[in-house]
Amino acid sequence: MMILHDNLGSGNGYKVRLLLSHLGQPFKRIEYDVTKGETRTAEFLALNPDGRIPLLQFTDGRVLTQSNAILFFLAQKTSYLPSDSFAQAQALQWMFFEQYSHEPNIAVARYWLYFLDRAEVQQTQLEEKWQKGYQALDVMEQRLGAADYLVDGGYSIADIALYAYTHVADEADMDLGPYPGIRRWLDRVAEQPGHVLITQDGFS
Amino acid sequence: MMILHDNLGSGNGYKVRLLLSHLGQPFKRIEYDVTKGETRTAEFLALNPDGRIPLLQFTDGRVLTQSNAILFFLAQKTSYLPSDSFAQAQALQWMFFEQYSHEPNIAVARYWLYFLDRAEVQQTQLEEKWQKGYQALDVMEQRLGAADYLVDGGYSIADIALYAYTHVADEADMDLGPYPGIRRWLDRVAEQPGHVLITQDGFS
Repeated sequence: MMILHDNLGSGNGYKVRLLLSHLGQPFKRIEYDVTKGETRTAEFLALNPDGRIPLLQFTDGRVLTQSNAILFFLAQKTSYLPSDSFAQAQALQWMFFEQYSHEPNIAVARYWLYFLDRAEVQQTQLEEKWQKGYQALDVMEQRLGAADYLVDGGYSIADIALYAYTHVADEADMDLGPYPGIRRWLDRVAEQPGHVLITQDGFS
Repeated sequence: MMILHDNLGSGNGYKVRLLLSHLGQPFKRIEYDVTKGETRTAEFLALNPDGRIPLLQFTDGRVLTQSNAILFFLAQKTSYLPSDSFAQAQALQWMFFEQYSHEPNIAVARYWLYFLDRAEVQQTQLEEKWQKGYQALDVMEQRLGAADYLVDGGYSIADIALYAYTHVADEADMDLGPYPGIRRWLDRVAEQPGHVLITQDGFS
């Protein structure tokens, strides 16, 4: 059985859990406490020199890291990856946007506020994260105010990648009120067959 | 003819120029001065709401943004994208690593030192970029100390993506001396047929 090296609070880990649930693929989960350095042990660094979860380990021992690369691999030849190569590139465009402009702001603000002691958080740094996070939401709203999903053709790994931290933006003290397109899309994603919650450990 | 909306100093733009040169595909280039807000005009935001170059515009008017998504699309069915789906995912793994752990540190330090007035740069912020940038180089060295290219099977878009800012790390005041694997790999990349320099405007 595949082993997902994971953290239950991680939106990046959740992306993989959510797609595996959609696909009905069973997996074993190993939980790592990132705040205690559990992804920086010699044993884990031998699996991933970058010291990050999620990491998916296949039964033959091969491993993949980077949540969005894992999504791309698992979605091959399923409806979650568009079959047209231009649409695939558009999905990847959103997924690179997610890792560059969305996650480093919204996920990091959420991590600071939700997992660390609020007293440790510097207000000016937090405000910069919020500002850039709202810029990322503005870009998403332009698309989702006019279309059901991020890429033409329906729900895809691009939606999974961006749903992960957008749907918990409130945990970063961010307000989705001014984003009606995004809010309707969040509902649409949550209605997909096989949807699981970010807090859900494995299959329901 | 394809139009590349670009900046000649940008490593992200260079990735696309380099692959187009390998492929022998002609293109027209439009130069944007990012420091003067030329990618934030209403005209450019209509093309890319994210306000960033590179952006590749095809003859039928369709556009792609995000350098690594553009590489993925252009490399379809060429030797620059591995044909095996697991190797494709490994290439994407390195490309997501590039946008998350490498570019935000090495490219940003280079931008501050090479394009802005040094007096504007905060030393503590610069030191954080260097520290995280060297961590990214450490991860690359683990692979490139033991293998010719980032992904098994030869030179690929993963190498193009990581070459772009690694080969100008000196412009970020970073020292590649302690990275013999990376230095040999830089030479190997520069020897590929159709290689062009980052400063080269179009084909030689």
